[in-house]
Amino acid sequence: LSREVVRRLWELFEAREWDQAGELLADDFVADWLQTGERIRGRENYIELNRNYPGDWSITVKRLVEEGDVVASEIVVTEPSTGTFHAAGFFELRDGKIARATEYWLDPPTAPPPAWRSQWVERL
Amino acid sequence: LSREVVRRLWELFEAREWDQAGELLADDFVADWLQTGERIRGRENYIELNRNYPGDWSITVKRLVEEGDVVASEIVVTEPSTGTFHAAGFFELRDGKIARATEYWLDPPTAPPPAWRSQWVERL
Repeated sequence: LSREVVRRLWELFEAREWDQAGELLADDFVADWLQTGERIRGRENYIELNRNYPGDWSITVKRLVEEGDVVASEIVVTEPSTGTFHAAGFFELRDGKIARATEYWLDPPTAPPPAWRSQWVERL
Repeated sequence: LSREVVRRLWELFEAREWDQAGELLADDFVADWLQTGERIRGRENYIELNRNYPGDWSITVKRLVEEGDVVASEIVVTEPSTGTFHAAGFFELRDGKIARATEYWLDPPTAPPPAWRSQWVERL
């Protein structure tokens, strides 16, 4: 199942099993990180980037939504010194491997929400 | 189909058809906006907030991923003066209405990506 491939990717990241994680990706894997406007081309670049990502981070998978060869994931990453990071990702599989990712990484909030809408909103 | 309910929600937002959009939401609808740490409780608060959202924004639906009663969406919102906003959303349906939303709204990038990873990355 497609969802199990994506779940396994996050589990292998969490375990720092980089070579095994790489085996889940197509050779020509491409990831877009929309928040920072970055594109990572190729399995090796993606694995090396994540292998070198600083911090003692830990990943929790909140939800996987699968439709055929596409899986959407919600994860939370905690890191003791930098905080909590929520991320949504959309993964496209081809022949059982992940060929394409589009990721939405949120920064921890730096400012309170705009005042104009406070009448309709609670703070999490 | 669940996906058609979510597509219709975005279409009705785009058309500023607020009352019709509200009819797609459960009375006890709750939305979480994770980037800003906001929770919007109730159909009316969500509709009023969006009705009052400033700007001449326009929504394009990029992708919908459906699994049973859950739909993940990717959209892009453009606004002439403030820029381009990417968002992922996860919507849970109950009895054909949207009961729960978890949204990942990205701000336009304000700074270049960290230099430590530039060797593995292209700019979008």
